[in-house]
Amino acid sequence: MARIAVDAMGGDHAPLEIVRGAEAASSENIAEIVLVGDENAIAPLLAHSSAIEIVHTPVFVDMHESPSIALRRKRDSSINKAFGLLKTGSVEAVVSAGNSGATMAFAIFTLGRIGGVERPAILTSHPNAKGAASILLDAGGTVDCRPSHLVQFAIMGSVFARHALGIESPRVGLLSNGEEETKGNELTRETHAILKTLDLNYLGYVEGTELYNGRADVVVTDGFVGNVALKVAEGVAESMVAFLEGYISKQNVRDKAGQDLLSEVLKHLSLRMDYSEYGGVPLVGVNGVSIICHGKSDSRAIKNAIAQAKGFVGSGLNECIKDAIQYYASPKQE
Amino acid sequence: MARIAVDAMGGDHAPLEIVRGAEAASSENIAEIVLVGDENAIAPLLAHSSAIEIVHTPVFVDMHESPSIALRRKRDSSINKAFGLLKTGSVEAVVSAGNSGATMAFAIFTLGRIGGVERPAILTSHPNAKGAASILLDAGGTVDCRPSHLVQFAIMGSVFARHALGIESPRVGLLSNGEEETKGNELTRETHAILKTLDLNYLGYVEGTELYNGRADVVVTDGFVGNVALKVAEGVAESMVAFLEGYISKQNVRDKAGQDLLSEVLKHLSLRMDYSEYGGVPLVGVNGVSIICHGKSDSRAIKNAIAQAKGFVGSGLNECIKDAIQYYASPKQE
Repeated sequence: MARIAVDAMGGDHAPLEIVRGAEAASSENIAEIVLVGDENAIAPLLAHSSAIEIVHTPVFVDMHESPSIALRRKRDSSINKAFGLLKTGSVEAVVSAGNSGATMAFAIFTLGRIGGVERPAILTSHPNAKGAASILLDAGGTVDCRPSHLVQFAIMGSVFARHALGIESPRVGLLSNGEEETKGNELTRETHAILKTLDLNYLGYVEGTELYNGRADVVVTDGFVGNVALKVAEGVAESMVAFLEGYISKQNVRDKAGQDLLSEVLKHLSLRMDYSEYGGVPLVGVNGVSIICHGKSDSRAIKNAIAQAKGFVGSGLNECIKDAIQYYASPKQE
Repeated sequence: MARIAVDAMGGDHAPLEIVRGAEAASSENIAEIVLVGDENAIAPLLAHSSAIEIVHTPVFVDMHESPSIALRRKRDSSINKAFGLLKTGSVEAVVSAGNSGATMAFAIFTLGRIGGVERPAILTSHPNAKGAASILLDAGGTVDCRPSHLVQFAIMGSVFARHALGIESPRVGLLSNGEEETKGNELTRETHAILKTLDLNYLGYVEGTELYNGRADVVVTDGFVGNVALKVAEGVAESMVAFLEGYISKQNVRDKAGQDLLSEVLKHLSLRMDYSEYGGVPLVGVNGVSIICHGKSDSRAIKNAIAQAKGFVGSGLNECIKDAIQYYASPKQE
């Protein structure tokens, strides 16, 4: 069984929801769990019969702490101890709902980047109109990007889509403010010029709608734009759900059958938008399997993230990324 | 009655839908309309009794043409002729559903920028959870921005919210990948440092969700990020509507009453997301009233955009923008 370290202290609802999610994953035999964090806070939350191991450290990174300061001062934090366990081979993956900037910083520091990778990226999946998933990266890992970073995101996203989603020739688009070559900003124009020369299935510029209509399998952007895009999507979805809730409660629907029907629809719609369903998102480009969860994660999200992490253990994804990065970096024979 | 020039040749459905929208606005006495474009294409679409005047030019800018090339080669285009009419005082506003980059380029070229304004911006409104509207700018006017541009967008957005929406002290947020000061990219960090020193009601960094939850009245970002945000929002909304349509058609709802109810809800939801309802969006920072419409605009969108343009005519918004830009640019007494 896969052995997975979970940062018990990271997340808005840590440690309670994290511990509960870990217990659920453990009791359902999804994985063998190591909880990293303050034993005094964790142990009382565990059942007596729990098979979960605790690796104790009283230090943890606050949700709003500066990643660079945490990196300097909190080497003994729960998140970095978790990566230490992964580094030494004591566990096979790390799951964290904590400060994502600090998680990323410690992943780079302790695990190191995959050979040739300049910057890691956070990779998110979006259910699209074709019943499949479109990938967005970077969703917030690296905010100030150079063209070479975006080119590597395109390569890593393409490898991920082939490897994890089984798409033979993933269509890769570069997120822009319009599809024409005359659009884009300085960063996208330089990136576009490079991507055109690589033998990726490159579509050129795509717009934000492309994340949802299924025309692109992989959408590439920097971590600033990617994160804004994610949060905007969350905002729109929440506002539409709130509109429907308001519609029901405002007595537009007077009969019980109609109210039940709308509540049912609302449940499906909310579930579709619910990050807890999906668990977490992988950090790609570092040596090891690392799943980053939403700060608001509840126990279900944590359990699903553990299951997700398990899926990547032993999958060979990182070796494929390494090979692809090297393949595209080496000069080609004409 | 306000006299408004409409670019008859701009938009995916030009000239037919543009002419129809103009006719509707004219016959409903919303404004006196001047259609600018190819007389041979426009005249056959007009009713014999039409009060609409045509200013003829055979040249027009294609939807996918490079704005900089159009600016050099198409001074006689319908969009630039429309701005020429505004410049000389023959009309009081311009409405266009054409190539937005070219519209913006010709607006700057022919109308000129308001004194002190470095870059104009496209300003969009978003219905928020508090039943009001939150403003986003720039939604695609200026893609490569310097901090001083974003600072001016904050000032112009604040003036607009006070002037056009009646918000006494508009809360202004800077769009970022998180609310903490440690977040942001190079551009936002420099902008944030300046905005903190101005006597605006400045909230600091806000996330994409803030556009919809009503916590901010004005959300500031560069035209690249703003445009991506808009298109992502469009994509999410379309995908949720498609999900509901699928839910109805998949026979989840077998009785007629339930189907009717969901169709009704869907209609409300679609309408709420429908840009045709809102018409167009103002270009702020240029000398004159200019409304930019979605390329897909139908006659209803055009008619509503004309009504919107009329609302800005004589409102004194541009004088207020000019005063505010000068106020914030001048050194303050301690």
